[in-house]
Amino acid sequence: MDNFNFYSPTEFIFGKETENSCGEYVKKHGGSRVLIHYGSGSAERSGLLDRVKASLEKSGIYYVVLGGVKPNPRDTLIYEGIELCRRENVDFILSVGGGSCIDSSKGIALGVPYDGDFWDFYGTGKPVEKALPIGTILTIAAAGSEGSGASVVTKEEGMLKRDVGSDLLRPRFSILNPELTQTLPAYQTACGATDIMAHVFERYFTNTNEVEVTDRLCEALLLTMIKETPRVIKNPDNYEARANIMWAGTVAHNDIVGVGRSQDWNSHGIEHELSGLYDCAHGAGLAVIMPAWMEFVYKHNIMRFAQMAVRIWSCEMNFENPEETALRGIACFRKFLHGIGMPINFAELGAREEDIPVLVEKFGLGDGKTGGFVALSSEDVAEIYRIAANAAL
Amino acid sequence: MDNFNFYSPTEFIFGKETENSCGEYVKKHGGSRVLIHYGSGSAERSGLLDRVKASLEKSGIYYVVLGGVKPNPRDTLIYEGIELCRRENVDFILSVGGGSCIDSSKGIALGVPYDGDFWDFYGTGKPVEKALPIGTILTIAAAGSEGSGASVVTKEEGMLKRDVGSDLLRPRFSILNPELTQTLPAYQTACGATDIMAHVFERYFTNTNEVEVTDRLCEALLLTMIKETPRVIKNPDNYEARANIMWAGTVAHNDIVGVGRSQDWNSHGIEHELSGLYDCAHGAGLAVIMPAWMEFVYKHNIMRFAQMAVRIWSCEMNFENPEETALRGIACFRKFLHGIGMPINFAELGAREEDIPVLVEKFGLGDGKTGGFVALSSEDVAEIYRIAANAAL
Repeated sequence: MDNFNFYSPTEFIFGKETENSCGEYVKKHGGSRVLIHYGSGSAERSGLLDRVKASLEKSGIYYVVLGGVKPNPRDTLIYEGIELCRRENVDFILSVGGGSCIDSSKGIALGVPYDGDFWDFYGTGKPVEKALPIGTILTIAAAGSEGSGASVVTKEEGMLKRDVGSDLLRPRFSILNPELTQTLPAYQTACGATDIMAHVFERYFTNTNEVEVTDRLCEALLLTMIKETPRVIKNPDNYEARANIMWAGTVAHNDIVGVGRSQDWNSHGIEHELSGLYDCAHGAGLAVIMPAWMEFVYKHNIMRFAQMAVRIWSCEMNFENPEETALRGIACFRKFLHGIGMPINFAELGAREEDIPVLVEKFGLGDGKTGGFVALSSEDVAEIYRIAANAAL
Repeated sequence: MDNFNFYSPTEFIFGKETENSCGEYVKKHGGSRVLIHYGSGSAERSGLLDRVKASLEKSGIYYVVLGGVKPNPRDTLIYEGIELCRRENVDFILSVGGGSCIDSSKGIALGVPYDGDFWDFYGTGKPVEKALPIGTILTIAAAGSEGSGASVVTKEEGMLKRDVGSDLLRPRFSILNPELTQTLPAYQTACGATDIMAHVFERYFTNTNEVEVTDRLCEALLLTMIKETPRVIKNPDNYEARANIMWAGTVAHNDIVGVGRSQDWNSHGIEHELSGLYDCAHGAGLAVIMPAWMEFVYKHNIMRFAQMAVRIWSCEMNFENPEETALRGIACFRKFLHGIGMPINFAELGAREEDIPVLVEKFGLGDGKTGGFVALSSEDVAEIYRIAANAAL
């Protein structure tokens, strides 16, 4: 096991009607002038925004609002948010939405106390030294941003998708009420589930040996997703299944199932160019990319893929031909994704094979290589896009 | 899933030689005048204490020391520690040892700013309102106290063992270096492993339905312990196995595998009277009590015990007779404990069947009942002690 630090100081408040206490938690965590940052009109229409405002008012907290966060959140709205926060002396950001909304909030949080352009931190590794505190009320189980220090933002000019990570961006509290996800359409629910599973797989495929405890914890989350996702697709009102998925989504990405080992994250990087270029859902892009990535790299460690097949997909081990088992596991993953309504190739996603050179160019490796489970060259990335483009069940 | 709050703000620093950074972490978390609290002379003899002092000195931190914590830590040393901290204006406690040492440190931490007797908080549910901050350097993987808000202390007068819990008692940081556990004798290693497994089982046996994600996470930790414990008993120097056990021990008790569901904790309560009366190791007491408790309660939910047998102990499911599977799982657990050198009945533990009335009296139920998976009366507790007294493989 590699040396590691694990620090997840977020207070999670989980369960029915918990959003009605948001005022108390803002107060507890030091906020007095709040920006409510949210996405689509559904927070308005459902009455959620009114409940949030009522709770803040009850706690005597001043607030301003900024809605309009889009999936694949844009830099342009973040600039607007930074300006608003400075003008209104905001000292706490309350993010009401899914991963895009929280990621946008994190962009604002680090931008407000910074003299330069907030974009300086994205994709550069420049360390964050200061940020406004954030709280979240999660409405989509997917990104894990409610418990992580990561933020992914798209620069509108050129549709460049880049990320930043810092413990200072971990939310002070996150309110998770599975009821809020019950109105989510099946497609978005499935996109979220795919994202959660991908967060685990990015950690599962490691070159660090004998990390038994994190291997088993990863499998625990994946088994949960495999059982619960079809249940919510079939019955969107199933609170228990929604609750299991929501908590799995948080645990999947606060890094407790990834510490002490090398991780991969190439599928996420390769996908980001798809959702950057086509503005498709991140989870849908992952459904197309991740099995293709698996097919490209599995020979690097056939027994790890065989373990996935047996322990996660309940395949029988083929002891005479472990490679056959490994490939069967990958096929099970793709079939599962197809079963919950995800696209499995470029055509189903709305991407074009002829754009692959553009995607590879934007990925920006040049003559270099990525890190991860298998180090990839530009040509490798192109091949993964080609496998993804033409995948079939 | 029940509503819950999960808050684990402890910073974990895991890996080789990490204790040499303790000064930095004390400083980061606000300490300037430190009490180093430790247990046996082994911290002195091994040079650990010198390394800790050197790191504090390097960070310019003043310290005083108080050693001598015993297993089943006593109130008497805590009174001494409280007085020392007040006299020396200590603002941070650095606990160097296992669960007993950390629990003793928590007693001191809550006692220093409190006007009355620190014992007022133990076993009474009186809420903790203030406590000194604590950091830990863990030397035994067992109690999980390094990531929990719990403390168990024994009042020397009458050997009463009682507990307290509060988020204010969660350590600010915990340094976990598996190397420090490599010198631990096999018996103590096995006691620690048993305690870790018990912490998971106390959460696994729940009356809350459909808590898929926490069920799977519990099983992940138990599978890890079943694989790794025999490896360290056989080869105490196995760093990787020690590392997996150490991290599993922390995750097992910071409640991430127990949230959102009813828990049991009767085995812990019933055991506390054994280690209170005989001053035996807590883990050894649990090895005797927990399988006996399982045999007493399994009919309450045969399928949950069958699940344990199949998923944790790799038993074949007997579909015609699930009860047989359930009992086989319990037998596997006892056999496993025996295999790692744990006692399995009163004689092996050094307890006496004729003391059962005394144990039940000290347990203090009177005509009442416990909570938990199955509510127990005094007579039920006596019967569990009797099963434990006479258990065989």
